[in-house]
Amino acid sequence: MLDLHTTDIIRKKRLGEALTDGEIDFVVSGAVDGSIPDYQLSALLMAICFQGMTARETAKLTLSMAASGETVDLSALGGVTVDKHSTGGVGDKTSLVIVPAAAACGVKIAKMSGRGLGHTGGTVDKLESIPGTRTDLSREEFLEVVRKTGCAVIGQSGDLCPADKKLYALRDVTATVESVPLIASSIMSKKIAAGSDCILLDVKTGGGAFMKTLPEAETLAREMVRIGKNVGRRTVALITDMDRPLGRAVGNALEIIEVCETLQGRGPADLTAECVELAANMVVLGGRASGVEAARETVRQALQNGAAFEKFCEMIAAQGGDVSYLREPGKFALGAVRKTVEAPIPGFVTRAAAEEIGLASVGLGAGRETVGEAIDFGAGILLHKNRGDYVEAGEPLATLFTSERKRLDAAEERVRTAFRIGPEKPAEQPLILARIE
Amino acid sequence: MLDLHTTDIIRKKRLGEALTDGEIDFVVSGAVDGSIPDYQLSALLMAICFQGMTARETAKLTLSMAASGETVDLSALGGVTVDKHSTGGVGDKTSLVIVPAAAACGVKIAKMSGRGLGHTGGTVDKLESIPGTRTDLSREEFLEVVRKTGCAVIGQSGDLCPADKKLYALRDVTATVESVPLIASSIMSKKIAAGSDCILLDVKTGGGAFMKTLPEAETLAREMVRIGKNVGRRTVALITDMDRPLGRAVGNALEIIEVCETLQGRGPADLTAECVELAANMVVLGGRASGVEAARETVRQALQNGAAFEKFCEMIAAQGGDVSYLREPGKFALGAVRKTVEAPIPGFVTRAAAEEIGLASVGLGAGRETVGEAIDFGAGILLHKNRGDYVEAGEPLATLFTSERKRLDAAEERVRTAFRIGPEKPAEQPLILARIE
Repeated sequence: MLDLHTTDIIRKKRLGEALTDGEIDFVVSGAVDGSIPDYQLSALLMAICFQGMTARETAKLTLSMAASGETVDLSALGGVTVDKHSTGGVGDKTSLVIVPAAAACGVKIAKMSGRGLGHTGGTVDKLESIPGTRTDLSREEFLEVVRKTGCAVIGQSGDLCPADKKLYALRDVTATVESVPLIASSIMSKKIAAGSDCILLDVKTGGGAFMKTLPEAETLAREMVRIGKNVGRRTVALITDMDRPLGRAVGNALEIIEVCETLQGRGPADLTAECVELAANMVVLGGRASGVEAARETVRQALQNGAAFEKFCEMIAAQGGDVSYLREPGKFALGAVRKTVEAPIPGFVTRAAAEEIGLASVGLGAGRETVGEAIDFGAGILLHKNRGDYVEAGEPLATLFTSERKRLDAAEERVRTAFRIGPEKPAEQPLILARIE
Repeated sequence: MLDLHTTDIIRKKRLGEALTDGEIDFVVSGAVDGSIPDYQLSALLMAICFQGMTARETAKLTLSMAASGETVDLSALGGVTVDKHSTGGVGDKTSLVIVPAAAACGVKIAKMSGRGLGHTGGTVDKLESIPGTRTDLSREEFLEVVRKTGCAVIGQSGDLCPADKKLYALRDVTATVESVPLIASSIMSKKIAAGSDCILLDVKTGGGAFMKTLPEAETLAREMVRIGKNVGRRTVALITDMDRPLGRAVGNALEIIEVCETLQGRGPADLTAECVELAANMVVLGGRASGVEAARETVRQALQNGAAFEKFCEMIAAQGGDVSYLREPGKFALGAVRKTVEAPIPGFVTRAAAEEIGLASVGLGAGRETVGEAIDFGAGILLHKNRGDYVEAGEPLATLFTSERKRLDAAEERVRTAFRIGPEKPAEQPLILARIE
């Protein structure tokens, strides 16, 4: 009888009809308790890939998945809490800049982050490259750090959104990942379970992002903002460029060094500009500025006057990290095996392909090629040139860091392929492509 | 690595690309040996429902499924062997008329049949209502009966097409049954494994059929004929009406009695006409007539002169059945609990809905409501009127037979609902709607 019910739900979706709230709850609870077998779930997921879901269905799926496990109650923190999610990029260390920067402006942030996925890095991995830093705080420790310092960033707890965990694992092996309502509900269910009042989304687009084109990114961003609205969480999305790496550093310790520089107002222009924009939106969402323009100014000041950097040090210290590494970045043990890739001809860098550079960094040991693999925190790539820069023949384009010589050749080849040099300066590509709320 | 391969195949189909022969073999063998998990198979089946398959893919899937288990070698029989398949209907006893009729005209027929499914009856169940008849002959016994009498009808062997068995079971619980290439390859793989040189398909359409509309039936028929051609089996399809029951008898023993009458030239006009057409096409396929018109005449003679009936008796005797039941049909124990449904008003029967009547017959005990249930061979419905007939108020429309009084009320209600009576004679509906080869 139960089985028949599931078959009817699959058929309904296959024929393009919308599922009722009750049917969605039935599917989500059946996925968690195992009463719906995987072969029925995967058939339904494939039907959703083809037929999509209405706004109501997507919002309901999100809430139902968010309620499928533990949820975090941040109300004890008082005030407005703001969360942030990035769809993932190469050299995307913005979270570690904007969380302390916005916290320095008075916003409360209790953030759960992920690990590296595919060619992209993960905030939790980056944090763990600072010796001593704990990302597995208990719920009580987590809230205590936020209470004390205004912010905390930890890994996602195992009990959050078990339905999403189940469905995501199934999507991964049944080629049903690429569906806007499924991606949107997966991301938003975790953010909703994580308890913040407001959500800032950084949807990346371009060659180094999972959403390759602007229309795809816009569709996903609109869907997530719509879900946020439908479930009563104030949500804003920025669509940002990820055709080329963000900043100059790719790899965990290398990126932490760049984060420290940026938090002290000495970061690369592109990274700084994008962080100011993202942090300003968090400040507005957190009710700490009257408008985005005023918020930008407040954030810039926090970067210039050291408040943002001090906030980062406070947070890391509270999470058990050794802050001396932040104050003296020379202490980080970067990969001893190094290789500099030079420009073969003079000209403008017309392409610095983020995905290729991200894969090269993973190949050097900065990411995982199989689940659970250890990471070489000192591995990665330092870019000397990025898209739009002029370079002389023989001038360094990038330096590769690793601790295993055998990893070098393939990565070097990838980095060479990633760069293209031409006679004309490429058109300026804006960093922030759209803002959706 | 294996897993990755399957995901790529699913993605390819999801994006609407055609699978290679190697990929189809990989899926079919993975389904049989269990190396591809059900959740990946069901995702692929759902993607096929949406994206379809090319003629080459469908033919390859058919051959690959046919080769997945035992195949029957009929070459020792000599001459041209002809098989027949019906997509299933209500009162559809044509196989038991046309197999002996065509065999009486010299065609060799080694046929495997199925059991009742849903509201439709099954040839194997009908045969078993003749006391003693064995439908589980060994391969050697089966061929021996054909060698001796020219024809045999048994149940499908357990080792035939295990890939189809696996995929069909999965389709049934994942709402992926209704896909033309999947239905067509499922039917044709079994026919090809069963070994006959030629295949006659009876594709039923209308309210009592699985294909409700003529275009749907035509699409399926064309697909199956195309598969037959692509794999070198001469295949002809007739599309026949199944809006109303065929003949007057619905239910196992009742249908055998009607088969015996029809084989002796005394059957209802509609059933006789359809059987002549089907059998004539088998005679042509079997090379025993120069054209369909000549074949029709040969078949009519076999029905008139008793040769078809004697062939049926020979076959049943060879399969262990008690032929005295065929010669004296009064010996059949029909359900003792009977009820006649009468016309409430005078007029023409404008509707005698086959599906409703089929379900009523199942409800009386003539079919199975759950797998493996025992059948009441004496249960069923005898129609006194069918679509187009004139009826006076109070005149009998149908008599219901069962052995359990509690089954009567619901069935009676269904039969009443199935009939509609109006003032105008409905337009004549041809029995044979199309012939496709």
